[in-house]
Amino acid sequence: MPKTIYVLNGPNLNLLGQREPDIYGRETLSDIEASCRQLCDAESVDLVFRQSNSEGDLVDWIQQARTEAAGIVINPAAYTHTSIAILDALSACEMPVIEVHLSNIHKREAFRHHSHVSSRADAVIAGCGAQGYEFALLRIFELISS
Amino acid sequence: MPKTIYVLNGPNLNLLGQREPDIYGRETLSDIEASCRQLCDAESVDLVFRQSNSEGDLVDWIQQARTEAAGIVINPAAYTHTSIAILDALSACEMPVIEVHLSNIHKREAFRHHSHVSSRADAVIAGCGAQGYEFALLRIFELISS
Amino acid sequence: MPKTIYVLNGPNLNLLGQREPDIYGRETLSDIEASCRQLCDAESVDLVFRQSNSEGDLVDWIQQARTEAAGIVINPAAYTHTSIAILDALSACEMPVIEVHLSNIHKREAFRHHSHVSSRADAVIAGCGAQGYEFALLRIFELISS
Amino acid sequence: MPKTIYVLNGPNLNLLGQREPDIYGRETLSDIEASCRQLCDAESVDLVFRQSNSEGDLVDWIQQARTEAAGIVINPAAYTHTSIAILDALSACEMPVIEVHLSNIHKREAFRHHSHVSSRADAVIAGCGAQGYEFALLRIFELISS
Amino acid sequence: MPKTIYVLNGPNLNLLGQREPDIYGRETLSDIEASCRQLCDAESVDLVFRQSNSEGDLVDWIQQARTEAAGIVINPAAYTHTSIAILDALSACEMPVIEVHLSNIHKREAFRHHSHVSSRADAVIAGCGAQGYEFALLRIFELISS
Amino acid sequence: MPKTIYVLNGPNLNLLGQREPDIYGRETLSDIEASCRQLCDAESVDLVFRQSNSEGDLVDWIQQARTEAAGIVINPAAYTHTSIAILDALSACEMPVIEVHLSNIHKREAFRHHSHVSSRADAVIAGCGAQGYEFALLRIFELISS
Amino acid sequence: MPKTIYVLNGPNLNLLGQREPDIYGRETLSDIEASCRQLCDAESVDLVFRQSNSEGDLVDWIQQARTEAAGIVINPAAYTHTSIAILDALSACEMPVIEVHLSNIHKREAFRHHSHVSSRADAVIAGCGAQGYEFALLRIFELISS
Amino acid sequence: MPKTIYVLNGPNLNLLGQREPDIYGRETLSDIEASCRQLCDAESVDLVFRQSNSEGDLVDWIQQARTEAAGIVINPAAYTHTSIAILDALSACEMPVIEVHLSNIHKREAFRHHSHVSSRADAVIAGCGAQGYEFALLRIFELISS
Amino acid sequence: MPKTIYVLNGPNLNLLGQREPDIYGRETLSDIEASCRQLCDAESVDLVFRQSNSEGDLVDWIQQARTEAAGIVINPAAYTHTSIAILDALSACEMPVIEVHLSNIHKREAFRHHSHVSSRADAVIAGCGAQGYEFALLRIFELISS
Amino acid sequence: MPKTIYVLNGPNLNLLGQREPDIYGRETLSDIEASCRQLCDAESVDLVFRQSNSEGDLVDWIQQARTEAAGIVINPAAYTHTSIAILDALSACEMPVIEVHLSNIHKREAFRHHSHVSSRADAVIAGCGAQGYEFALLRIFELISS
Amino acid sequence: MPKTIYVLNGPNLNLLGQREPDIYGRETLSDIEASCRQLCDAESVDLVFRQSNSEGDLVDWIQQARTEAAGIVINPAAYTHTSIAILDALSACEMPVIEVHLSNIHKREAFRHHSHVSSRADAVIAGCGAQGYEFALLRIFELISS
Amino acid sequence: MPKTIYVLNGPNLNLLGQREPDIYGRETLSDIEASCRQLCDAESVDLVFRQSNSEGDLVDWIQQARTEAAGIVINPAAYTHTSIAILDALSACEMPVIEVHLSNIHKREAFRHHSHVSSRADAVIAGCGAQGYEFALLRIFELISS
Repeated sequence: MPKTIYVLNGPNLNLLGQREPDIYGRETLSDIEASCRQLCDAESVDLVFRQSNSEGDLVDWIQQARTEAAGIVINPAAYTHTSIAILDALSACEMPVIEVHLSNIHKREAFRHHSHVSSRADAVIAGCGAQGYEFALLRIFELISS
Repeated sequence: MPKTIYVLNGPNLNLLGQREPDIYGRETLSDIEASCRQLCDAESVDLVFRQSNSEGDLVDWIQQARTEAAGIVINPAAYTHTSIAILDALSACEMPVIEVHLSNIHKREAFRHHSHVSSRADAVIAGCGAQGYEFALLRIFELISS
Repeated sequence: MPKTIYVLNGPNLNLLGQREPDIYGRETLSDIEASCRQLCDAESVDLVFRQSNSEGDLVDWIQQARTEAAGIVINPAAYTHTSIAILDALSACEMPVIEVHLSNIHKREAFRHHSHVSSRADAVIAGCGAQGYEFALLRIFELISS
Repeated sequence: MPKTIYVLNGPNLNLLGQREPDIYGRETLSDIEASCRQLCDAESVDLVFRQSNSEGDLVDWIQQARTEAAGIVINPAAYTHTSIAILDALSACEMPVIEVHLSNIHKREAFRHHSHVSSRADAVIAGCGAQGYEFALLRIFELISS
Repeated sequence: MPKTIYVLNGPNLNLLGQREPDIYGRETLSDIEASCRQLCDAESVDLVFRQSNSEGDLVDWIQQARTEAAGIVINPAAYTHTSIAILDALSACEMPVIEVHLSNIHKREAFRHHSHVSSRADAVIAGCGAQGYEFALLRIFELISS
Repeated sequence: MPKTIYVLNGPNLNLLGQREPDIYGRETLSDIEASCRQLCDAESVDLVFRQSNSEGDLVDWIQQARTEAAGIVINPAAYTHTSIAILDALSACEMPVIEVHLSNIHKREAFRHHSHVSSRADAVIAGCGAQGYEFALLRIFELISS
Repeated sequence: MPKTIYVLNGPNLNLLGQREPDIYGRETLSDIEASCRQLCDAESVDLVFRQSNSEGDLVDWIQQARTEAAGIVINPAAYTHTSIAILDALSACEMPVIEVHLSNIHKREAFRHHSHVSSRADAVIAGCGAQGYEFALLRIFELISS
Repeated sequence: MPKTIYVLNGPNLNLLGQREPDIYGRETLSDIEASCRQLCDAESVDLVFRQSNSEGDLVDWIQQARTEAAGIVINPAAYTHTSIAILDALSACEMPVIEVHLSNIHKREAFRHHSHVSSRADAVIAGCGAQGYEFALLRIFELISS
Repeated sequence: MPKTIYVLNGPNLNLLGQREPDIYGRETLSDIEASCRQLCDAESVDLVFRQSNSEGDLVDWIQQARTEAAGIVINPAAYTHTSIAILDALSACEMPVIEVHLSNIHKREAFRHHSHVSSRADAVIAGCGAQGYEFALLRIFELISS
Repeated sequence: MPKTIYVLNGPNLNLLGQREPDIYGRETLSDIEASCRQLCDAESVDLVFRQSNSEGDLVDWIQQARTEAAGIVINPAAYTHTSIAILDALSACEMPVIEVHLSNIHKREAFRHHSHVSSRADAVIAGCGAQGYEFALLRIFELISS
Repeated sequence: MPKTIYVLNGPNLNLLGQREPDIYGRETLSDIEASCRQLCDAESVDLVFRQSNSEGDLVDWIQQARTEAAGIVINPAAYTHTSIAILDALSACEMPVIEVHLSNIHKREAFRHHSHVSSRADAVIAGCGAQGYEFALLRIFELISS
Repeated sequence: MPKTIYVLNGPNLNLLGQREPDIYGRETLSDIEASCRQLCDAESVDLVFRQSNSEGDLVDWIQQARTEAAGIVINPAAYTHTSIAILDALSACEMPVIEVHLSNIHKREAFRHHSHVSSRADAVIAGCGAQGYEFALLRIFELISS
C-alpha cells in the first residue's frame, strides 16, 4: 500500500505569485503542488496537497493526517505565530512534521520571529522559496525510510 | 419549560482519549458527554453538547447560548490562550459561565498559563479531568437555583 | 462601471445594539449598513457589506475585495488584536484600507491597545461610533477621487 | 483505619463572611468547615481543618499532612502568590493536592494571577465559593479510590 | 449665544506642508484652519484655532477651553506620547475631546504608538490627513447636538 | 469612650538606632513610641504600639485593629514589598490607614520602590524619619475628626 | 535675616477645588497658600508660593530657589513622572527638598507610580491632601533647625 | 572566650534526606549538624545550629547572632528568593555571612535563580551538598582569623 | 554671505561650572560660548549660541535654524531623554546636526542612556567636556565644506 | 574556472558524533564533509570545509570567502546566538549565505531561539541533521545558477 | 595511573593581584596555582592549570579535558556571562564541573548575575577568593572518590 | 621619553572602505592610521595602531597598553555590544579611554544601541567617520596634558 504525505498550506498562500513577489517569489501554489507531486510520484508516495484561510480547516486536516499520513509538511503562514490549536493538533500526531516558510521569517517583522509550530516540528526550513517544499519532502522520505 | 445548558468544547478535544493520555486522560469526549447528560437529566435540564476546531463556530454557538441557555460550560482548549473573540462573545452573555480544563494548565508550558476567557468566567476548574465538567454543571445548578 | 467598496465586520458585531450598549452604542449593524448604503448610493458606488465570526471568512472576503473593490473599510473587532492572517490579506491589497472601531480601544483593556491591522491601514478611526463608518467611506471617496 | 484529609486555609480566611462579601461571599469559615465535615463523615474520612495567618504554620501543617494524610486541600489565600516555602512543602508530599480559591483570582489584580502552588497542585478550583471546597474533597475521594 | 470649539495644535505643526510631506501631506496649517472655519461657520459655531511648540501653552489653552468651549479637537503632535500634563488638563474638561493625527501613528516608530491623550479622548482619528480635522468637528457637532 | 490607634512596625525595626544609622537615623523605636504616646495623650486617644519580625503577627494585629481601632499607622518595613497578606488584612479594615517609612524608599534599591500596602493606604509618608509617625497620627486625627 | 522657603506647584494645580474633587479634594490652591503662609509666619520664614503649567518655569524657579531659599516644597503634578529637567534642577540645590502629592499616586494609574523627583527628594508625602503641604513645611523647619 | 558561629536553616530543611533525594541528597539535617559540630570543635568554636519554617524566627535568630556570633552560615531555602526581611536582618550584621544551597539553584526553576540574600552575603556556595556547609565554615574561619 | 551655525543648550546648562562639577566640569557656559565663537570666527562663520530651560524655546530655535543655519550643535541636556518635540523639529531640518553631552551619559543612571535626539543626529559626542563643542563645530565645518 | 563554496562550522562541531547524540546525531563532521564534497564534485564546484572553536577564525574565513567564494554555508553553533562579529562579516559578503543547524534550535533552551546570523542569511535550515548541509548546498547551486 | 584535573581560567585573570584588588583580592594567579598544586599533590592528582583571554582557547582546553581529565574547575571570568560555546563544550563532558568566581558576582553589576555556565556546572562557588579554588578541588575529590 | 597611545580596532574594520560604504564611509583603515600617525607625530607621541577579528587579541593588547600606553582609543566594532572581557580589560587600565564608532550606532539596529565599553570609557564619539579618531586623539592629548 502506498504511503501518503500531507502538504498543508495556511492563509493567503493561495495568492502566491501575485502577492508581494519580492518576499514570496513568483511561483504559484499550483507550481509548488506540481513539483511536490513529481517528487512524490518518483517515490511512489501519495500526496494530499491543500490550502485554507481557516485555522479550523487546518486543524481538521492535521487530524485526518494523524491516521492517514506518514508525514506532514506544513507552511502555516500567518497561523505560525498565533495558533496553539495547530500546535496541539500536530502534537497529537506521531509522524514526522516539517515546517516550511517561503521567506526567511527571521529577517521580517519581530512578530514573525516566533513560531508556535516549531516547538513540535522535527525540522524548520525557511527562506528556500518553493525549493523548501522539496527539501521537506526529501527529509520526510529520509526519516520514514530509516 | 426545561432549562438548557450549553457545554462547548474547543479544538482537538474530539481526539480525547487518543491524544497524549498522560496529560488528558483516557476518557473520550463521548464518555464526558454521557456523564454530563446523566447529570442534566437528573436535574431535568436540557443539554447542548458540542465540539469544534473552529474559533468561529464557538463564537456562533456562544451567541446561540446567549438567548437560549441558562448557563455555559466551556473548555476552550487552545483558544483559551489566543481568542479574544470568544471572550467578547461570552461577555455578551449574562448567564453563569464556567471555564473547564482537563489538565492543570498552570503546570504546563508558559503560554498556557494565561486565559483570555478567565477574565469573564465566573469560575475556573482545571486539572480535575472529566470530573471537572461535572463540577462545572453542579456549580451552574447552584448558581441558577439561588 | 460603478466602483465597489467592501465594508467588512468581525466577530460579535452582529450583536451590535444588544451587547454592552455603554461601550458599543445602541445602533444595530443593519442601521450602520443602511447609512453606509445611503452614502455610497449618493456617490454611485457599490457597497458590499458583510459580517462573520470566522477569521477565515474575513480573509476570504479581503481576497475577493483585492480584485473587485476600490477600497476596504474594516472593523476587525476582536481579530484586530490577534490576526496576522487578516493583516497579510490586507497587505496583498493595493487599494485604500480604513480601520474602524466603534469604541475608543485605547480607553479599554491593555490587550485591546495593539492592532495588527494598523500597520497596514491607511487610517484608523476609533470611538466615533457608527459615524466612524461614514468618515471611513468619506475618506475612501477622497482617496480614490484624487 | 480511617483515612485523613487536611484542609488548610491561609491568611485572613478567618475573616470570611465579614471581609469584602462581594468578593468572598457571606459564608464563614465555620460554615465551610461544617459542610466539609459532613462530606467527610459520609465517606468515613477524618478531617483536619485549620487556618493560620502565618506562612510558617502552614508549612508545619503540610509537613504533618505529609505523613498523616491521604490528601490535602489548600486555600493559600495571599500566600498563593508569594510563598515558595509552601510550594516546597507541598512538593515533599506524594498525595493528591487540590488548590482552592473562593473567588476567581484571574478576574482580580494582576499580582493575584500567578500562583506558586499551582505548579505542584493536581487541580485548581477558583471562583466556586464555598462549593469549591466540596469539589476539591470529591476530587480527592475520586483520586484516592482509584 | 454661539457655541465655541477649540482646535489646538502641538509642536512643529506650524511647519506643515514644508516638513516631511510624505508623512504629513502638503497642506499648511492655514489651509486646515480655513477648512475648519468654513465648517464651523456653516454650523454657526465659533472657532478658536491655535498652535504652540510649548507644552505649557497647550495646557493653558485647554484650561481656557474648559470654561469657554463646547468641544476640543486636539492634535498634540509630539506631546501625544510624552505629556501627562495635557492629559490631566483634558481630564478636567467635561466636553467632548477628539484626538487627531495627520498620519497613522501606528505605522511609524514604536515610541509613537502610545498616546497619553487617548485614555481621555472620546475618539481618535489618525491617518486621514487634513480631512481628519473635519471628521473631528463633525463628530463634535454630532455629540453636542444629541 | 476614648478612641484607639494602632501603630504597627515590621521586621528589624526593633534594631532602630543601631542598624545603618545613615539610612534610618539614630532614634530608637522606644523614642518613637514615646513621641507617639505624647501626641495621642494630648488628643485623649489610646495608643497600641507594636513590633514584630513575623508577617503572621502583623496580620493578626491588623485583624484586631479592625474591630478595636479608629485608625492604623503601619511601617511594614521589608514586608512592604513582599506581603500580600498584610495588604489583604488592611483591605478588610474600613478605618484610615497611613503607611510610613523612615527613609525615602524611592532613593534606595529598585526592589524597595514597589509597595503592596500603598494600593490600600490612604496616605504614604516616606523619608521624614521619626517625624513621619507624628505626621501620620496628625493625619489620622484629621480624618477621624472630620 | 529671615529664611525663605519656596513652595512650587506644577501643571493644573491652579484648577484645584474644581477638577476631579474625588481625587484632589475641594480646597483651592489659594486655601493651601493661606495655610502655608500662616505656618511660615509663625516661624518667621518668608514664603514664595508659585504655580505654573510650564516645565521651563518650574526649572527657572528652582534655580532661583537654589541661591535664595533654605528649602523647597514641590508638588510637580504631571511633571513628577516625565521631567528629568526638574530633577536636574533640584539636584543642583543643596537644601532640603520635600515632594508632595495631594492624592496617593500609588493608588492611581501605573504611569503615576514612578517619580523622577523622588530620586532627589529628601522625603515624599502623598495622599494627605492639603495637610501634606503643612507636613512638608514642618519637616523643612525640623531639618533646617537641626 | 570561645567564638560562636550561627548556622541557620530555612523552611523544609528539616525534611532533608526524605524530600526529593535526587535534588537534595540523602543526608539528614542532623548529619549536617554533626559534621559542622565536629569542624567547630576542632577550631574551639561554639556552634548554634537551628532550623525553622518561619521567616520571623529566622529574622529573630539573625538579630541574636548580630550581637553574639562571629559569623553566620545561612541556607535560607525557599526564603532565599522571597525574603527582604532576612536580607535586612543580615544587613544589620557586620560579621561574615556565607550563603549555602545544597543544590545548584541555577540549574532549577527560573524563580530560584534570584537570591535576595546574595546582595549581602560575602560568599555563595551552591551545589556542594552537605559539603557546602563545611566550606562555608572554613571560609568563616579564614575570614575571622585574618 | 557668511554661514551661520546654531549652538543650542537645554535646561540647567546655565548653571554650568556651579552644578555638580564632578560630573559636568568647572567651565561655565560663557567659557564654552567664547571658545566656540573663537573657532567660528576663524572659519568666518556666524554663531548663534543660546540656552533655555523650556522645551518650547528649543523647538522654536531649531525651527529658526531650519531656514537660517548651515548646521546645528545641540546639547539637549535633560530633554535628550524625554523630548520627541525636539526630535521632530530636528527631523524637519536638512542640515548637519551634532548632539553633544558634556559627560558620558552611558556611565550615568539608566534613564540617561536613551536619547530621542540620537535617532536624528548625524553624530553624538559624549564625555569630552567643553572640548566636545569644539569637535562638533569641526565636524560641521568638515560636513558643510565637502 | 570552477566555483568555490565555503562550508564553515562553529565551536564544538568537531565533537560531532560523540557529543549528545540524541540532539546532534551520530554522524561525524568528516562524514558531513564527505557527503558535501561528493555533492560539490558532481557540480564541479570547489569546496572549502572548515571548523574552529574561535569566533575570530570564523570572521577571518568569512572575509576570505568574501572574495573567493560563490556562496557560504555556515553552522555557527553556539556563536549563532552571541556573535555580532560574524553577522557583520557575513553582511560584508554579497553572495548567498545559508544558515544550517543540525538540531531544531527552536525546540531547545530559550537562549538558542534567537540567531544574530538569521538577519543576514538568505535561508535557515534547522533540524535536518547532516542532510541539512546537502539542502543548503542544493539551495546555493539553485541561487547561483539562476 | 594518576588522575588529572583541569583548572581553567578566563580572560584578565592573568592580571590578578594587580587589577581592582578591592574586588579580586591581592593574590596572583601563580599563588592560586601553587596552592592548587599543593592540594593535588597531596591527593596524587595531576593538575593542568591554564589561563587564556580567548574564548576559543578555553573551548579547546575543555575538549582536551573531556578525554583526559577526571574533573574540571573553571573560572570563566567575563565569558561566564556571554559564552554559550563554553557551556556547550562543558555539556559534552561527563565528569564533575565546578564553577568558581573570586568575587560574589551577585553583588556586582546586573549583567554579571547571569551565568551560562551554571546551567551545566555541578556546583558554583562565588566570593571565597582564592580559597574558592581549594573548595572546588575538594568537591571534585569528594565526587570522584564516591 | 615619548608617550605612547594605542589605537585598537575590532572585527571587520580591516574591510573599511569596501564594506557597506553608505554606513562606514569610503576611507580605509590605512587612511585612518595615516591621519592618526600624522597627528601623533605632531605631538611627539608614539602610536600603536592595530586591528583584529579576535576578542582575545583585543584583550591581550589592552593588557599591553595597560603598562605601556598613556591612553587608549578603541573602536570595538561588533564586540562593543557583546564583550564583557574587553570591558574588564579596560577597567584594569587607569589611563584615558576613548570609544569611537565610525557610524552613529544609535541610528542603527536596536542591538547596536548598547555598549558594554561605554560604562568604562571616558568619552564616546560616534558618527564622525574617520574624523572621530582625530577627535579621540585630541581628547587624549588634552587629558594627559592637564
